[in-house]
Amino acid sequence: MNEIERVIQLLSRLPGLGPRSARRAALHMINRRESLMQPLAQALKDAGEAIKICGTCGNLDTADPCGVCSNPARDGTILCVVEQVADLWALERTASFKGRYHVLGGVLSAIDGVGPEDLNISALVERCSGEVKEVILATNLTVEGQTTAHYIIERLEPTGVAVTRLAHGVPVGGELDYLDDGTLSAALQARRALG
Amino acid sequence: MNEIERVIQLLSRLPGLGPRSARRAALHMINRRESLMQPLAQALKDAGEAIKICGTCGNLDTADPCGVCSNPARDGTILCVVEQVADLWALERTASFKGRYHVLGGVLSAIDGVGPEDLNISALVERCSGEVKEVILATNLTVEGQTTAHYIIERLEPTGVAVTRLAHGVPVGGELDYLDDGTLSAALQARRALG
Repeated sequence: MNEIERVIQLLSRLPGLGPRSARRAALHMINRRESLMQPLAQALKDAGEAIKICGTCGNLDTADPCGVCSNPARDGTILCVVEQVADLWALERTASFKGRYHVLGGVLSAIDGVGPEDLNISALVERCSGEVKEVILATNLTVEGQTTAHYIIERLEPTGVAVTRLAHGVPVGGELDYLDDGTLSAALQARRALG
Repeated sequence: MNEIERVIQLLSRLPGLGPRSARRAALHMINRRESLMQPLAQALKDAGEAIKICGTCGNLDTADPCGVCSNPARDGTILCVVEQVADLWALERTASFKGRYHVLGGVLSAIDGVGPEDLNISALVERCSGEVKEVILATNLTVEGQTTAHYIIERLEPTGVAVTRLAHGVPVGGELDYLDDGTLSAALQARRALG
């Protein structure tokens, strides 16, 4: 296998890229060697060396503790529990949450053989013995996500912290006609008084 | 911008990857640092250093002349003229062409200001003064591709080589009902006697 084929083979292992789009991406980079290919090679090398897992919350960052955990302006009394780092990043992009996070690293799943000890749950319970007053569960609305949320509620009960979860309902800008029944039912049940 | 953001920014410049899929790809790699991120960084660096443009046909390869041009088993009397290296690769994957190639590097386009001198056409005319007996035009069936094909036919006329083009018609496995009118008309006009 020559160097080009090796690049294509590795690119095709990225999510969202098949063999055809990996070839297109490789050609695109070869035609932009100085401006894209070499910088990307260097950036991947740098990132691979610099990225650490935050020992406090499980976030990925170039520092440990991560930027969120070490930021004194963030409210350490509220923790938002997410499944994956991608979820944390999604919440950070909204810039509307000023507390801190806890990344589980997955969800409970009997089929995949993921038990509580495989997730970052004990550390969460430990954190809740300190200054934490509220835990917001932001696991996904899947069977596994909800199972995990219920398990965490049980584990956190003795600590006495308040446990909340994200509101579920109609997405902003969403059209009722295109929504699934589950979301619509949840939105109905969680209806709020106006004014 | 930290190392993670830099990777995401560069990845999002690849064709087919937007900001969201670039983030997903970056996280995917960070979770597979040893098996994917570091090898890809190395492969990109190696490829960036090793890849050359073939001085004969314009193909991209780690050798100049490229593997096709230097392969004595390939028929040097037939040249297939393609717009881009990607087209050459597509034809090579079929393994049904045993001649050599000539990559134009684009098509004539008044709108984009691409003239004959911007394409690899003079070198093609020069090659046709040697052992070449047939030139297969495999430019795309776009206005620009066809304009370029006609221009090449004129330029090659004095050399006396036979000029052919790829057959146009119904794709193998294609259903008539889903074909565009142009392809269907071309397939009708180019109908062949059975048996």
